[in-house]
Amino acid sequence: MKQANTHKIKLSSAALAPSCLFTCGDDESWQDKQYIANLGLKGASLAKMTSLGHPVPIGFVLTTDFCRQFNAAGNKLPKGTEKLVKYGLAKLEQRLGRKFGGTEKPLALSIRSGAPVHLAGLMPAILNLGLNDETCAALATETGDARFALDCYRRFIESYSIAVLNVGEDLFEEIFEEVRSESDLNSISEFESNDYQVIIDRYKACIIEETGDDFPQDVFVQLMGGISAAFESWNGYRAKSQRRINQISDDIGLALTVQGMVYGNRNKSSATGIIQSRNPNTGEARVSGSYLTYAQGPEFIGQYRAPKPLTNEDKARDGRVASLEERMPDMFKQLVKTACELEKAFGDMLDIEFTIEDDKLFILEAVRPKKTDQAELMVAVDLAKSGIISKQDALMRVDPKSIEQLLHPSLDLEAKKTKIARGLPASPGAASGEIVFNSEEAEERSALGKDVILVKIETSPEDVYGIHAAQGILTVRGGSTSHAAVAARIMARPCVTGASSVKVDTENETLYASGHTLKKGDMITIDGTSGEIYTGKVATIEANFSSEFYTLMQWADEVRQLKIRVNTETPELALKAQKMGAEGIGLCRTEHMFFEKGRIVSMREMILAEDEVGRKRALDKLLPMQRKDFVDLFTAMSGYPVTIRLLDPPLHEFLPKSDQDIMETANAIGIDHKAILRRLESYAETNPMLGHRGCRLAITHPEIYDMQVQAIFEATILAEQATGDPTMPEIMIPFVSTKAELVFLKQRIEDIADNVANIHGARPAFKFGTMIELPRAALRAEELAELSDFFSFGSNDLTQTTYGISRDDSARFLNSYARRGIIPHDPFVSIDKDGVGELVKIAVERGKRGNSNLTIGVCGEHGGDPYSIHFYGDLGLNYVSCAPFRVPVARLAAAQNAIHSQNEI
Amino acid sequence: MKQANTHKIKLSSAALAPSCLFTCGDDESWQDKQYIANLGLKGASLAKMTSLGHPVPIGFVLTTDFCRQFNAAGNKLPKGTEKLVKYGLAKLEQRLGRKFGGTEKPLALSIRSGAPVHLAGLMPAILNLGLNDETCAALATETGDARFALDCYRRFIESYSIAVLNVGEDLFEEIFEEVRSESDLNSISEFESNDYQVIIDRYKACIIEETGDDFPQDVFVQLMGGISAAFESWNGYRAKSQRRINQISDDIGLALTVQGMVYGNRNKSSATGIIQSRNPNTGEARVSGSYLTYAQGPEFIGQYRAPKPLTNEDKARDGRVASLEERMPDMFKQLVKTACELEKAFGDMLDIEFTIEDDKLFILEAVRPKKTDQAELMVAVDLAKSGIISKQDALMRVDPKSIEQLLHPSLDLEAKKTKIARGLPASPGAASGEIVFNSEEAEERSALGKDVILVKIETSPEDVYGIHAAQGILTVRGGSTSHAAVAARIMARPCVTGASSVKVDTENETLYASGHTLKKGDMITIDGTSGEIYTGKVATIEANFSSEFYTLMQWADEVRQLKIRVNTETPELALKAQKMGAEGIGLCRTEHMFFEKGRIVSMREMILAEDEVGRKRALDKLLPMQRKDFVDLFTAMSGYPVTIRLLDPPLHEFLPKSDQDIMETANAIGIDHKAILRRLESYAETNPMLGHRGCRLAITHPEIYDMQVQAIFEATILAEQATGDPTMPEIMIPFVSTKAELVFLKQRIEDIADNVANIHGARPAFKFGTMIELPRAALRAEELAELSDFFSFGSNDLTQTTYGISRDDSARFLNSYARRGIIPHDPFVSIDKDGVGELVKIAVERGKRGNSNLTIGVCGEHGGDPYSIHFYGDLGLNYVSCAPFRVPVARLAAAQNAIHSQNEI
Repeated sequence: MKQANTHKIKLSSAALAPSCLFTCGDDESWQDKQYIANLGLKGASLAKMTSLGHPVPIGFVLTTDFCRQFNAAGNKLPKGTEKLVKYGLAKLEQRLGRKFGGTEKPLALSIRSGAPVHLAGLMPAILNLGLNDETCAALATETGDARFALDCYRRFIESYSIAVLNVGEDLFEEIFEEVRSESDLNSISEFESNDYQVIIDRYKACIIEETGDDFPQDVFVQLMGGISAAFESWNGYRAKSQRRINQISDDIGLALTVQGMVYGNRNKSSATGIIQSRNPNTGEARVSGSYLTYAQGPEFIGQYRAPKPLTNEDKARDGRVASLEERMPDMFKQLVKTACELEKAFGDMLDIEFTIEDDKLFILEAVRPKKTDQAELMVAVDLAKSGIISKQDALMRVDPKSIEQLLHPSLDLEAKKTKIARGLPASPGAASGEIVFNSEEAEERSALGKDVILVKIETSPEDVYGIHAAQGILTVRGGSTSHAAVAARIMARPCVTGASSVKVDTENETLYASGHTLKKGDMITIDGTSGEIYTGKVATIEANFSSEFYTLMQWADEVRQLKIRVNTETPELALKAQKMGAEGIGLCRTEHMFFEKGRIVSMREMILAEDEVGRKRALDKLLPMQRKDFVDLFTAMSGYPVTIRLLDPPLHEFLPKSDQDIMETANAIGIDHKAILRRLESYAETNPMLGHRGCRLAITHPEIYDMQVQAIFEATILAEQATGDPTMPEIMIPFVSTKAELVFLKQRIEDIADNVANIHGARPAFKFGTMIELPRAALRAEELAELSDFFSFGSNDLTQTTYGISRDDSARFLNSYARRGIIPHDPFVSIDKDGVGELVKIAVERGKRGNSNLTIGVCGEHGGDPYSIHFYGDLGLNYVSCAPFRVPVARLAAAQNAIHSQNEI
Repeated sequence: MKQANTHKIKLSSAALAPSCLFTCGDDESWQDKQYIANLGLKGASLAKMTSLGHPVPIGFVLTTDFCRQFNAAGNKLPKGTEKLVKYGLAKLEQRLGRKFGGTEKPLALSIRSGAPVHLAGLMPAILNLGLNDETCAALATETGDARFALDCYRRFIESYSIAVLNVGEDLFEEIFEEVRSESDLNSISEFESNDYQVIIDRYKACIIEETGDDFPQDVFVQLMGGISAAFESWNGYRAKSQRRINQISDDIGLALTVQGMVYGNRNKSSATGIIQSRNPNTGEARVSGSYLTYAQGPEFIGQYRAPKPLTNEDKARDGRVASLEERMPDMFKQLVKTACELEKAFGDMLDIEFTIEDDKLFILEAVRPKKTDQAELMVAVDLAKSGIISKQDALMRVDPKSIEQLLHPSLDLEAKKTKIARGLPASPGAASGEIVFNSEEAEERSALGKDVILVKIETSPEDVYGIHAAQGILTVRGGSTSHAAVAARIMARPCVTGASSVKVDTENETLYASGHTLKKGDMITIDGTSGEIYTGKVATIEANFSSEFYTLMQWADEVRQLKIRVNTETPELALKAQKMGAEGIGLCRTEHMFFEKGRIVSMREMILAEDEVGRKRALDKLLPMQRKDFVDLFTAMSGYPVTIRLLDPPLHEFLPKSDQDIMETANAIGIDHKAILRRLESYAETNPMLGHRGCRLAITHPEIYDMQVQAIFEATILAEQATGDPTMPEIMIPFVSTKAELVFLKQRIEDIADNVANIHGARPAFKFGTMIELPRAALRAEELAELSDFFSFGSNDLTQTTYGISRDDSARFLNSYARRGIIPHDPFVSIDKDGVGELVKIAVERGKRGNSNLTIGVCGEHGGDPYSIHFYGDLGLNYVSCAPFRVPVARLAAAQNAIHSQNEI
């Protein structure tokens, strides 16, 4: 089987790039990347397989340099190409004992184009090149099979005319169909040599009519025409637009493989087919595939003949026809063995194209197929376990973003469904439920055991309990980092945002989309992974936490440097996140604790109080609730750090907005509803994101943070008593812009700690930290660090202020920006390295200067984004914190970052 | 008169700081600053006057070092003080031929404390120190005037007991009043020696009762007690709080002056008084003042006797009593001569305290009085013109902030008025008018010739024509850089913002304040200089553009480096600003041009159009209007650069809000009003400041900027034809965050210029610039500069985003911040050097790196703020641009910056 004794072609002119006859095994300095850049994916894989001794039809490659020179010269082949090609041909003739254009044992060729990356739109393969009236007759004589020779000839005329002469495929199809019906033939196997001769004659007439010229009989003209057409196809419309869409450089060029033909249509002991080394949907390590006898090239997926099952297992599923395993058991065994060896050699599962010519196996191509996310993970882990690839390779191979989707239920692809709209995929997973249009209703119906989907124009912090109660969330406005999106991810609810084609009439509790009118209580299904929205309940498939997932995560933990924390405030999600690998809480948003039904009244009472005394009275009611929150959270996270952000949003977010809610609140607190209206008016803000929020609340109303800190300290002591483990609360101050804010607040916190120490006999241990979420805080990081044990970057606010873009309002223009290529990606999703990133760098540098023991993390949206995790990891941050279901994503991304850094060193 | 032959005291101990007997003229190396730091303002002025040969009572100074050592040692006088004091006393005794505590020709002293800066709360002067029962008798014998001696003694007991023994002033007043009524005396001149003896006896009894001790008869004990009490007063409550308030270091200490007494109460040829070298209210060069005969120290302003007029001119105003000019013409002449000489010596107008003892003049103190802003300017210019100070000194002496107020009408201080509230002084000047509650009404009433004051909760860009029509603006919300404030300053309208005690009921067109209820049409007066609000019409005094003002401005122009431009979009204000020295327009806000009545409909039609075609149709209507705007502006500013900012605010700001306005707009455009409501809803933004505005509008709707640029270019050609002068428009792109925005927009602008060139045969010359108003723009300045001819800092937005503070929402917490000292000043008014300032520095550095010919200016609020102008000037900016009435402010501040820089070199 070994054909590995061919030689490299010596170039006759320095202007010509290297070309090679398979193999290149005699020159070890050619590394895979260089192979691929020169030979294209296809050529490189053939060269590699040849060098390993696998049965590849002999041939040579015109490298990508020919293509670049062809393009540079305005579609002219470089000087000397003909000479080189002739040299290659001579070698082939010599090796195969055949003659190109010869009237005895004629040589036919296949030519195939392929770039260094997967790219559609290039010239399709041309098979049987070198046949003409004479050589066809010679082939018939040689094989004693005129039907076979004519079948090859008509195939050649078809493929060549379409690819090189620009004659339409439909014309050939018409002629073929004509002949079929004239001769009353049903299947291609009924065609006789006579029928093929008729077809060939009519093809030739058609070509004269279309082009004004005869079909070329000179085989060298045929070959050079094919080569030129292949390189021309590089600048064809389809190839160019494919490159533009996929941001592929025009410069990489295509390479052209010229091989001697092997005939899958030679006789009944010949066939062609594909074998998949594993299942690309599931990753299962089981070969499968299909084949056809009496067939060539891509025909096995053609229209006239149904492909047959490769294995007996495939057959059991597919039907009655014979499998290759049954029909040619030796060939099948050899094929499976080859697939297994090639997997090892290529380090990945493969789709392998093969041809059997008269009981002899040839491999025509081996490519890494597109896999599902789950298959990618399964294969990577299995290959690493088998020692075929390293653990690091396995880690690098899985896209961290795909991990999140594996952990959520997905729509059953087989299920019948009616799509009514598409929005942004904001939080993955699929969910069905009755439509509700406000959070209260969501809570009420959910309490009755109903599944609900919360549908809103947009959500605000007061919706958190509604989001929690719902199975899924759908909003008309907002991007993938809008409030709804962020809250849904934190609470692990599927969410679709920015579904602007959906009209929501909140008053009449009706939703309109694509001509459908849905009322409250009607069932819908949303797919937060794709952003699609369907009517009714669509069947879903449960998430699959495979053992391979846990294995990969364990490997990730072995190499990563970054710690991973979770953003959550509920003990349930904290425990869930721990199971997914969270090593602490990086962001507990205390405001979410105030929206719960029993508490919002006290919170509102506090906000509506006329003076500090009234506020304190209301805060006294909130204190035991906050304390219990923290006791539960600390107990759940026993042994892990818990970062608590003190109250952040502007107070008006807690006030009632609807008339009914205002009346109810007025009654509950026992004040005039007009007082609420007045307060609403006086608290209104033009730009609440830049308003009276964060630590600014504590400068004007210190008693609020005082209560929260008191609750944290008392809970610390209680949790330690309950668990016996140390509790380490980390108190984090939001929206800091100047050192003086920290000085003021830290002193108050220390005073409260002293107070608690006096009462309880023990001073609670705690850390004090600063959120870096304003440009000024980043710039003044050195002096802020002097007072801080830790920093945590709030990437959302830092991006909002650095870019001057309100996250909630950005959808209206960010699309235009993306379309025009003005902003390469949504900076709320992935860090803007050049702008926001520089401030982050500045803050890290200056922060370390101010306090060399400073712990630094990130708790904004970037904390769960692989691209951003690389950036923060490179800066040497200590941890990232993200939504619960992004914890595994972050673990993998952190591992990839660590591997990348090691490799750089 | 010359007493300049005394010697410095040689210090007996190195631990003691230098002390001196006036004069220090023999040691020229003592510069003024060192004088003042050691001797205090008072001591230094006395030393200086002595050295110049003026009649200062001889004495010595315990320097500020004594005070520092006294404090450091815990209120103990430094070792050797007694020895030093005795040495000084011996010198005094020798020079005056008197003996301290002597029973013949006894020496009495005055001791006065004074710091190196003006500071209230220190120990008041103690006069006649050294009198006791014996020396009093000796003084009576020596002068033959027991009444005089006893008067001195009782004055001494009073002042000493209050300052040193802590006996209450009220007790002495009670005793004095007792005796007066017992003896049935009306005025102090009726007191006989007997009466004084009774008073003294009762004082002594009172002191025993209060302190348990006799009044000290040992004169050295008296002196050392007085010295200790003076130094102790440095850490008294009042002095300390004064230092804290004025941010004065505790370390500067006070100096104590010990002088031989001169007696203004000696006889009828004795007096004490004050002469002012000029009028501190107007700056007029005319002496005035007051005096009393038979008086000592501060008595001439005391409660028992009305001070008398110094000059005949004063007398003509003040009444019947004799002036010093009449009564002691020689003394008066000598005094005026002295005042004139001292003005030259001190280089400023002075308040001079003097005493005449038996027809002999003594100068007790000379201080620079507090002047009105106008007086400061008049005096500085006059002194410089007289060659007494340099032009640079004159420029440095006037506070630029005071300039603005001189140019506006002010309230007549004498007018009767009823204050109903106070807000923030947002734009200076006083105005009266009828209240209106919306901009349309303001325009309508103003068109009828009425003066109106526009009263609103807050204003938005659609109010600009209302603000323009009104005489003044009052808002309930907003800080001194809110929209109302900024717009009012640009249009030179008085404005009070943030008047939170005023309740405005817009619906019922009623205003409530301090129990007053005012309806639409009622008259009010606002004072934008003080922030005060009055009912009714209060008389005002017109602004005074004095010739001194023009002179000072001319001097400023001679030295300043920074160019000054104006922020305006109207030809009228542009011309006005030119008269005030503007050298171009630094910011023409084109959006203001769209709010005018005829235009807003077309603007709305553009915004409400369903597609680009509809938008273009509406823009075609706006084009000729914009073109005319620019032709007028370019013509007015012929020869000067005009920077035009393309449309900046979000489009929803132009849409109608009230029901009536919505209906009218719907009718005018011919669409359903529901379409407007829908557009309003879909355009709503949570944080419009960070929303779809600035160049983002032009990325999504390029046709808007296209129209504006077309109008600019056509106007350029028309204006050049009209004026014959070159027009140099500078097109400025707002709210840029990334280079790709500029690339996109610049290309369109160049294309339009090419188009115009094709049509008109000449390509309009223009400059292309970038507003730097986002942190990201500052960070990316290098690549932005590569495409820019100029940068202009938008300080408002840059501060908003760097600090994360919405200007319009900041009032609610910035007060708390100021009160707690967390933010030292409003960063919208004066640049935050540490945060925003660093970004400005970065942008300047990187901008110059990207384009070494880059012109850089600032056009935000900081452009008119002296503190900020210094900062920007130091960074080498080319120009600042500000509101029209701030142009002179900026000219002066720029001059001061230039002088400061020169001096640093």
